[in-house]
Order: sequence, then structure tokens, then C-alpha cells
Amino acid sequence: MSMSAELIAVGTELLLGNVVNTNARDLSESLSELGINVYYHTVVGDNPERLRQAVEIARGRADIIITTGGLGPTCDDLTKATLAACFGKELVYHEDIGRGIRAYFAERLPGIPMTENNMRQAYLPEGCTVLQNDRGTAPGCAFFAEGKHVIMLPGPPRECRVMFQNGARPYLEALSDAEILSHNIHIFGLGESAVEERLQTLIQDLTNPTLAPYAKLGEVMLRLTAKAESHEEAEALMAPILQEVKETLGSLIYGIDADSLEAAALQLLIENKKTIAAAESCTGGLLAKRLTDIPGASAAFLGGVVAYANEVKTELLGVPAGLIAMNGAVSEPVARAMAEGVRARMGTDFGIGITGVAGPGGGTEEKPVGTVFVALATGEETFLRRLSLGTDRARVRIVATHHALDMLRRYLTSLPVETI
Amino acid sequence: MSMSAELIAVGTELLLGNVVNTNARDLSESLSELGINVYYHTVVGDNPERLRQAVEIARGRADIIITTGGLGPTCDDLTKATLAACFGKELVYHEDIGRGIRAYFAERLPGIPMTENNMRQAYLPEGCTVLQNDRGTAPGCAFFAEGKHVIMLPGPPRECRVMFQNGARPYLEALSDAEILSHNIHIFGLGESAVEERLQTLIQDLTNPTLAPYAKLGEVMLRLTAKAESHEEAEALMAPILQEVKETLGSLIYGIDADSLEAAALQLLIENKKTIAAAESCTGGLLAKRLTDIPGASAAFLGGVVAYANEVKTELLGVPAGLIAMNGAVSEPVARAMAEGVRARMGTDFGIGITGVAGPGGGTEEKPVGTVFVALATGEETFLRRLSLGTDRARVRIVATHHALDMLRRYLTSLPVETI
Repeated sequence: MSMSAELIAVGTELLLGNVVNTNARDLSESLSELGINVYYHTVVGDNPERLRQAVEIARGRADIIITTGGLGPTCDDLTKATLAACFGKELVYHEDIGRGIRAYFAERLPGIPMTENNMRQAYLPEGCTVLQNDRGTAPGCAFFAEGKHVIMLPGPPRECRVMFQNGARPYLEALSDAEILSHNIHIFGLGESAVEERLQTLIQDLTNPTLAPYAKLGEVMLRLTAKAESHEEAEALMAPILQEVKETLGSLIYGIDADSLEAAALQLLIENKKTIAAAESCTGGLLAKRLTDIPGASAAFLGGVVAYANEVKTELLGVPAGLIAMNGAVSEPVARAMAEGVRARMGTDFGIGITGVAGPGGGTEEKPVGTVFVALATGEETFLRRLSLGTDRARVRIVATHHALDMLRRYLTSLPVETI
Repeated sequence: MSMSAELIAVGTELLLGNVVNTNARDLSESLSELGINVYYHTVVGDNPERLRQAVEIARGRADIIITTGGLGPTCDDLTKATLAACFGKELVYHEDIGRGIRAYFAERLPGIPMTENNMRQAYLPEGCTVLQNDRGTAPGCAFFAEGKHVIMLPGPPRECRVMFQNGARPYLEALSDAEILSHNIHIFGLGESAVEERLQTLIQDLTNPTLAPYAKLGEVMLRLTAKAESHEEAEALMAPILQEVKETLGSLIYGIDADSLEAAALQLLIENKKTIAAAESCTGGLLAKRLTDIPGASAAFLGGVVAYANEVKTELLGVPAGLIAMNGAVSEPVARAMAEGVRARMGTDFGIGITGVAGPGGGTEEKPVGTVFVALATGEETFLRRLSLGTDRARVRIVATHHALDMLRRYLTSLPVETI
């Protein structure tokens, strides 16, 4: 019999629409991995009476109540006092937390006197497990009272995420004394429904481990999750399924527990001691931006040219003006010449060329909005994909760069490059 | 006495953490503009009994219940049936909606037979106001029953947003017969607390219109909202406050009701028939990406060079190797040379050069992580800002591009460029 949890986010800024409740998404995903059912999310403002009512409702329908927000030092921060009162607990001063807060201020803001309201953070419900805040000063806590588990986490997403991982997750795992492990299988080149179709039996019938697909802009992720008494046993449960998924999807899988397509491609480049440069038209620098989002990209990415105007294609990339005149700027030969040109100009091992119609304007009958040519020049050969990516400008741009990264990954792992 | 609303989002995908509830943010923001208080958000899965319980709770504490999600044709889509039952209403077939759905399928998917479950979308609560879906097939609806207003909107955010604006918003405005208007005042170059300090009296004391600040990554927005019997009267209420804000903040305001810094800069370029090119090191194409996010950017943005490696700065931008050797790649002279170089190579009116240490590595005592030099070359003069942007890589990159766009905007409006 699995447990259920309700998430209560506390913060008037959420009710005013100033911020999105991303904590609810992140925690729901993590709780789902732990096999804990989430049936409700509630958002309530910085108002003790309304928070109390939300807690009363939640305790009637969930085993675990997890709050986010309202742990800081300002007067608005009322979560601890309200939850403690709901469960008949006193707030008590924690000497070591108090010392930690004073030390934090002395170190970070030397010479600036700390206001005493900061010490409110050192008061926590009696007998609770303190959850340390590795990213801020407000600690969280967890306790069991009146048949319910209560966990309080901070509101800022980066504090919340880290405290959940380091503090709340182990607390919840200890409740079930089962080890829960997941692997994320990252797929490019197949839609969500096609992935589901190919793996239908596994997705529908497995109970431990489970296999569940998640779609995101042009990519699909499969999450494989096992529950067992030990880490080793969980891995052993997953191994045959992972093998079966790999056999079924083969080279469509770009990584297991990978960060992103750009991270996967960059890592392959660095491992192979290869360098790359990009020539972009319709994607306008997005490919370069994605690669340089990653710290350390400079080890493989030397630079790029955003060639929006035809003159830039000619002057900086050496694409012959006649080639553009004859085929149009959005064409296979121009994509090839851009890839080869940027490779030659920057002296890299590989060059990428992207040209297309991102829209909303610029489409023709022969080359409608969403037509994109992506080329990868290796010096020996230049590979090409012609794509039809629909009419959503932002989507056309991002999926075009997905394809460029996928071509690179396939080349570096000796897979066919032009076909998926 | 203003009314209160509760938002109920319906969808198991929200409880699994597959998607974020951005509808709650968008609707809360719009309701706040309309002067309607939102005290709770609730999220519930595709489960009629749990949805019914959530509706029972909501009707006890709000005047208006707004649901999102669960209006489509699949069996999971249960919002209409559940809400109708809660308020004692029958679902009745709407002939015209049925015809519309058949026409939609015939036109979009000719030759593919429409499955009959799609017709479920033509059943709506008796006596309701139909809210047309301009972005999909599932219509929404609004009705008044048992003392409460109920509004049902679709789950996909783009459908939800448009239906709210075109259908639900007029319905809600009619309830109060007041006209509510807002202006958004966009500010760059001053933090949120400094904005609040300078406008303290207006922000704290005004009741109609109201003035409220919102912070977002390196920018601040002020929203001015007035409620009156007519559009003209609302504008008249806001005019003196708008004037006062403009006088107080002056050139820190980059736009009223503007889309973004890049849109403001691009519009000024196009109005002045000027062209621009960008040379980026630490921002790795982000400036080019932001400018080309905007449809029609090609009228002013001709291209860019992402010069990650020093050789690229030298070869493609003509930055003398000696200059780099003497000053370092992250330096004022190199930023200037990049801006001037890209302007010359691309033959544009303006050139931008950005070089810095985005981190996490690469910092020195003299130039720690977050040090960025941004230059704007105009042909006559080259302007420069030296920035210290902290240690968060993503933030350093985005705020550096904010500064580049701000320098451009200031130059084009004859303001001082190097100081804020």
C-alpha cells in the first residue's frame, strides 16, 4: 500500500501570478520516482488562517504534507508557526542553527549588523528532524505527529531542490526502507506515441521496475524506476529492461542519464579531441548559445558565424554569391557551403551549416515555413538533412539545432548520419 | 467589495510533475489586473471523485471557480461532466459547435475519418455562455449557478490564454461593469528595491490606480492599473501617475507596454533604418539568438560572430593578436576591437563586442568571474561598459546581453551610453 502526499505552496506571490510554482512540478516528479502518490497540490497566500484551513483539508486526505515557502525571517513567513500549531507542537530554539546563522552573516556580510528577525529561523518544531539548507539560511524540517508526516521546505526553487535531495528524500526513503533508483533514457528522432507503440508491453505491464515516457520539445525521455531492498538489487531489476529498451530503440537513444543533446555531443567531441564551429542562418546563434551554455565548452567549440544576411554568408563564410543566386539562400548547396566554409575559416575538425525558413514570413510553395537544411562537414564528406519542422518559429529553431547535434553525435559514434 | 476566485487545474500530468502549472500563473496575473482576489490554487488529477471534492471545497471559499484542463475528447476529460453535476446542470448538445468540430476535422485532416468521441466536445452545461476556442477544438464555457460563477478553460496554455482574453475576461468584466486597464513600465538599470525606494509613496499609498513592481532577471517592471467606468476615465486616472514615474525614473525606462529589451532595441534600429552585427565571446551567441527570436529581425540584424577562441577573434574579426597578448582576451581594448571588427567585416552601422568571464572557471584576482566588457561601435565612436555580474553563469550571460541592448537603445535615443 503506497503512501500519498499533498503539496502546499505558501506565498502570495504565487497567487498574484508573479512566479510559477515550479517546486510543485519538481517535487511531484521526485515523489513519483519514490512511488509516493500525489493527489493534490494547493497554493495559499501568506495568511495564517487560510494556511491553517488548507492544512486541515490536506491532513484529511494525505499521509504526507509537504510545504514549500514561508520559512524565511520576514513577518510574512508563517509556515513553521502555523504547521506547528496545527499539529500541537511548540517551536523551540536550536542553539546550533542560531550559531550557524550568525556565522553566515558575519562571513558573507562582514561589518553589516544582522537584524534580529533572522534569528527566527533558528526556531523549529520540537523533536523534528532538521533539514539543512545548503543554499541559504532558512533550515527546513520534518516530523511525524498525529499520524501524518510533515515536511517543510524553503520557497526559492534552488534551495528547495537541494534540500529535498539531501534531506527530505532520505527521510522519505527511510519510511519505506526500500531503495528506489531511476535511470533516464534520452531519445531523439522518434515521437512520444511512436516510442510508446514500440515499447507498449513494457510501459503497460511492468510494475517493478516501471517504464514511463515523457515528451519534451522534439525529444522523448523514458524513465525506468525500480524499488528494491538494496541499490544492487534495484540495478539488477532494471538491467534486463534497460537492455531490451536499448535493443528496441538502438541508436535513437542518445544517452542514459544524460543532461541534454548538447552535453552529449560536447562530451563526445572532447573525448575524441575534436573541435567544431557553427554557421547559422535561421537559428540565429541558438546552436552556439546551446553549446556555450555548458561550462568548459571552449575545449571543443571554437566559434560560430551567424549569417543572417547573404553578404555575410559570402564574405565571412565564403559561400559563392552565384550559389545563393542559383539555389536560394535556403537550399542544400548553401547549407553544405556554410558548413564547409565555417570549418575552413575557423580551422576546426567539423563545421555545421544551418539554413531554413523559421517563419512566420519567408515561406514559398517549394520551401514552406519550417523547411530547414542542416549540414555537417567533416573534411572528408559533408552530410545533409532536409527537414520540415512545422510553423512554430521557436520550435523550428530549437528542433533544427537538435538535428545538428544529433548528426554530430551520430558521426562521432560511427552511426548513419543523414537518416535517423 | 471585490470578488474572490479559486483556480482548479485538472490533470494527472501536473501531479506527476510532467508539466508546470503555468496557467495558474497567467490567470492569477490577469485576475489580479481585474481586481479579483485569488486566495487558492488547487491541482487535482483526472479523477471525477477527487475533482468533485475539490469543487465542493472551492465553492465554500470563493465566488468564482475557474477550471483549466479536462475539456478534450478523451475519456480522461471529465471536467464538464463533474462541474455540471456539482451545480445541478445537464450537459446539452450544441448543434453549431458540433458542426464546427466536423468542419475543423474535414479541413485540417481531409480524408481521415473523425472519431465520434470528438463530438463529446459539443456537449456543454445547459444555459451556459460558450467560450470559443480560437486555438483548438474544445470550447470552454461560463455559467452562474447556486450563487457562484463557474468558468471552464482548456489545459494547453496557448488555448487557455487566448480563451481567457477573448471570452472569460469580457465575462468577468461584465460582472463588475468597471473598465480595468493596465500599463506595464519596463525598467533596466535599477534593482527592484531601488525602484521601490524611489517610488515608495506611489507604490504604498495609491489605491486607484495602483502601482506594483515585479522583478525579473536583471530587469524590473512596474504595473500601473486603473479601474473606472470607461476606458477614457481609466486612462485619465493613470496619466498623472505615469507622468510622475517617467519624471522619477527618466531614461531608466526602456519602454511602456514593450515586449522586451531586444524588441525595443530592434524597433529603434528599424525605425532609424540602421543595421547591426554582434561579436560575442562569453555570451556565445545569446545576443544574436535574442535578436533573431523576433520575427523580422533580418531587417536590422545582419549577422554575428561567436568568437570563443582567440584565433577566431583574430581571423574573423581582425582583433590584433598582439592586443590580445598584451591585454588578455577579456579586456577593454579587445571588446572595442571586436565591436569595431564585426562592424567593419559585416558593413553594418553598428557593431557590438562582448568579452568576459562567464564562469565557473577562468576568473583571476584582477578579473574575477562575472567581469564582462561590452562595447558599442558606431563608426564615429566606440562606447564601453565594464561590468561585474556575479558568479551565476546563466545570469552573467543574460545580463551582459541586456547591457548590450541597453547601450544600443540609449545611443539611438541620444542618451548617455556608458553610464546608466
